[in-house]
Amino acid sequence: MQHLIDTNNFTDSQITDLLEDAKRFKTQRPPQLLKDKLLITLFFEPSTRTRSSFEVAAKRLGAAVVHLDPSRSSTKKGESLEDTFANLCAMEPDGVIIRHEENEAPGILANMQMTPVINAGAGNHAHPTQALLDLFTLMEHFDGNIEGKTIAIVGDIVNSRVASSGIRLLSRMGMKVLLVAPKPFQPENIKLPQYENLKDVINQVDVIMSLRAQLERHAKPIFEDYDEYARHYCITKEHLGNRDILILHPGPVMRNIDISDEILDDPRCKVLTQVKNGVFMRMAILKLLLLDSNN
Amino acid sequence: MQHLIDTNNFTDSQITDLLEDAKRFKTQRPPQLLKDKLLITLFFEPSTRTRSSFEVAAKRLGAAVVHLDPSRSSTKKGESLEDTFANLCAMEPDGVIIRHEENEAPGILANMQMTPVINAGAGNHAHPTQALLDLFTLMEHFDGNIEGKTIAIVGDIVNSRVASSGIRLLSRMGMKVLLVAPKPFQPENIKLPQYENLKDVINQVDVIMSLRAQLERHAKPIFEDYDEYARHYCITKEHLGNRDILILHPGPVMRNIDISDEILDDPRCKVLTQVKNGVFMRMAILKLLLLDSNN
Amino acid sequence: MQHLIDTNNFTDSQITDLLEDAKRFKTQRPPQLLKDKLLITLFFEPSTRTRSSFEVAAKRLGAAVVHLDPSRSSTKKGESLEDTFANLCAMEPDGVIIRHEENEAPGILANMQMTPVINAGAGNHAHPTQALLDLFTLMEHFDGNIEGKTIAIVGDIVNSRVASSGIRLLSRMGMKVLLVAPKPFQPENIKLPQYENLKDVINQVDVIMSLRAQLERHAKPIFEDYDEYARHYCITKEHLGNRDILILHPGPVMRNIDISDEILDDPRCKVLTQVKNGVFMRMAILKLLLLDSNN
Repeated sequence: MQHLIDTNNFTDSQITDLLEDAKRFKTQRPPQLLKDKLLITLFFEPSTRTRSSFEVAAKRLGAAVVHLDPSRSSTKKGESLEDTFANLCAMEPDGVIIRHEENEAPGILANMQMTPVINAGAGNHAHPTQALLDLFTLMEHFDGNIEGKTIAIVGDIVNSRVASSGIRLLSRMGMKVLLVAPKPFQPENIKLPQYENLKDVINQVDVIMSLRAQLERHAKPIFEDYDEYARHYCITKEHLGNRDILILHPGPVMRNIDISDEILDDPRCKVLTQVKNGVFMRMAILKLLLLDSNN
Repeated sequence: MQHLIDTNNFTDSQITDLLEDAKRFKTQRPPQLLKDKLLITLFFEPSTRTRSSFEVAAKRLGAAVVHLDPSRSSTKKGESLEDTFANLCAMEPDGVIIRHEENEAPGILANMQMTPVINAGAGNHAHPTQALLDLFTLMEHFDGNIEGKTIAIVGDIVNSRVASSGIRLLSRMGMKVLLVAPKPFQPENIKLPQYENLKDVINQVDVIMSLRAQLERHAKPIFEDYDEYARHYCITKEHLGNRDILILHPGPVMRNIDISDEILDDPRCKVLTQVKNGVFMRMAILKLLLLDSNN
Repeated sequence: MQHLIDTNNFTDSQITDLLEDAKRFKTQRPPQLLKDKLLITLFFEPSTRTRSSFEVAAKRLGAAVVHLDPSRSSTKKGESLEDTFANLCAMEPDGVIIRHEENEAPGILANMQMTPVINAGAGNHAHPTQALLDLFTLMEHFDGNIEGKTIAIVGDIVNSRVASSGIRLLSRMGMKVLLVAPKPFQPENIKLPQYENLKDVINQVDVIMSLRAQLERHAKPIFEDYDEYARHYCITKEHLGNRDILILHPGPVMRNIDISDEILDDPRCKVLTQVKNGVFMRMAILKLLLLDSNN
């Protein structure tokens, strides 16, 4: 039984397969590959984008989906996460897609070895399907050749599971990763070049991954308000000029705080391509875990 | 790409097709016409009836449905309606069914030309699928011959999207539309005969469309309470006598406020027929927009 | 048209069929028996386990499911249960699965004879699908031979619909049913042996059905806290010793209050088997009501 807790669950050859499957699905709608499969989506945090992307991916492949939103139900009755999961697994789903506020939750459930577990975002630690769809988007843009390219991740890195998973996967794939953030937004214990200003790296990057500003997550206020944050970290035409830099963002984008209106409309900005690719990459992941791995 | 923002999006010939398809679906369950289609229902206002009618219609045709209830999710994170919609469209649904409190919302999204948009109720301006199912119900009852028939719309017309869409469609189809309401419930800028009392029109109408009383929507109180409203506008046996008048209501009906118990049980009252026909008309609309129009 | 309001809706021969179908489905995934069927789940109380079990059962059989959660919708607009149901039935579902806080709700709707009604839990009166899956679990364990076996139901019996339906069905099937609870948790008007202490019955039982403690449902406090309750009624290794006693619980289990951690991990405890069997029994019930009964 194989799980996806973080991208290190996949071998290089599996990642190659994922990229090929996603690419194929993008040009040619797959047949009902998962026609007899049933997935449970177990979302302890609200989500529109990731949940609907998984649900679209599953249904496009013919799978049935049962959505559970446990905030409104039995966990309120004091049941532990493990017990809720064990009960759901007794219903014999073909996989469980989980989002949880705790970093460790998906791994704990995977270790129970009851059904394939797919991490749809956990704490600030991992969001592997986002990392994989970002990889797909980059490979597509750079014609499969991202080794040696430089990506700057910009914003509230310490709170971002997108950054966490992205750093690990993109470094592994040979990209040079730089972090750009005010000191309190920079993670400790990560041996990567860290900068406070975008202008210090703008001439060496091929890609910028902007993150969602979440000032309210910081007990100690660093910026007076979002406007002050934006003056330093919003990705604007002034920063980019005519440089050939790809702009990514996991969404939802805060306009003119994370990225300016002008850049969002610029062809260098791939935010909607990421969303589109997300469905195809999640199809590929579901195929890998439910069909190709011998469960 | 064709949308349904209001019924004027359809030509006369398309409306004829809709009525024929709905009629056919009613006698003969259609095959899986939309087997490979996927619809997103995006409901910014709660709804049982309209949402479930669309969902039943879609699933009876074999389509997959992904339901989003954005009140509990990313719009809370400050994303605009247009951005939420653009992101969903990047997932390549075959159509989006939207309910929104703003009159203009469905039209704004349709103008983005990303996927067929189906208005499931917007503000007080339009609820075209209700108007079309009402048309179907009338055509069915009057054997296709409603030209020249008179319908009185009774109740809180100014706040009613059902009335708005109904007035436009039924006038276009050749019906004579009368409005019956207390002055503050009557719309301005509509050149239709307006009355304050049901008894002034009862001898000239073939159909009465009762609307849901929503006294709390009016800042200035017009009636002391619902009982006082009911004494004037509730459709009762006393009003109707033995006259051959068809009673419609979009639901949910407030019993003995909108319509009396006795009339609700009367064969002249077609409330449940409207609900039943709603599924078939929505099937026809989904077929038209997703299959017959060249998207 | 046949309904499932309580297990007395089924003849002995139908119960035999259910047990056989459930057993067959357990070893061999059924084909798309309900491929063209559409079910509405109408849950007036929150539920993870029962709702997802029904939804998994329906989707495994190929049925479509429309889930309604009326707490957030039109019943807030003052519509009666009967009117909500009549409206849903006008959409021509092939069955409605209802959970409601009122004992009488499912029966009232069934009497309307509009669509097969399946009771997914009503008040403290009936939870027939739980009773049937418990029967299936017992028959499986005792090789079809439960006549004359003794079951003790332990805990808050007076508030438990699981106990109510279980008492009726298991007595009918020939089991000897004992009740173990503090006096205020014991039902009146039931002619069954009632005990206050587990140790008074432990040497004569083959099965213990533990119930969820719900102290907050009792106006007059009987126990200081859950710990005090647990000291008397928690099923522990100390109670059981090495006796050959099967342990059931409808879930969610309160660990170390209803049943101790140690016993939950003991092979005599069949809690997860009950959940697993629940899907197969609900498949059998859906097949019976939607296919085998002539609706």
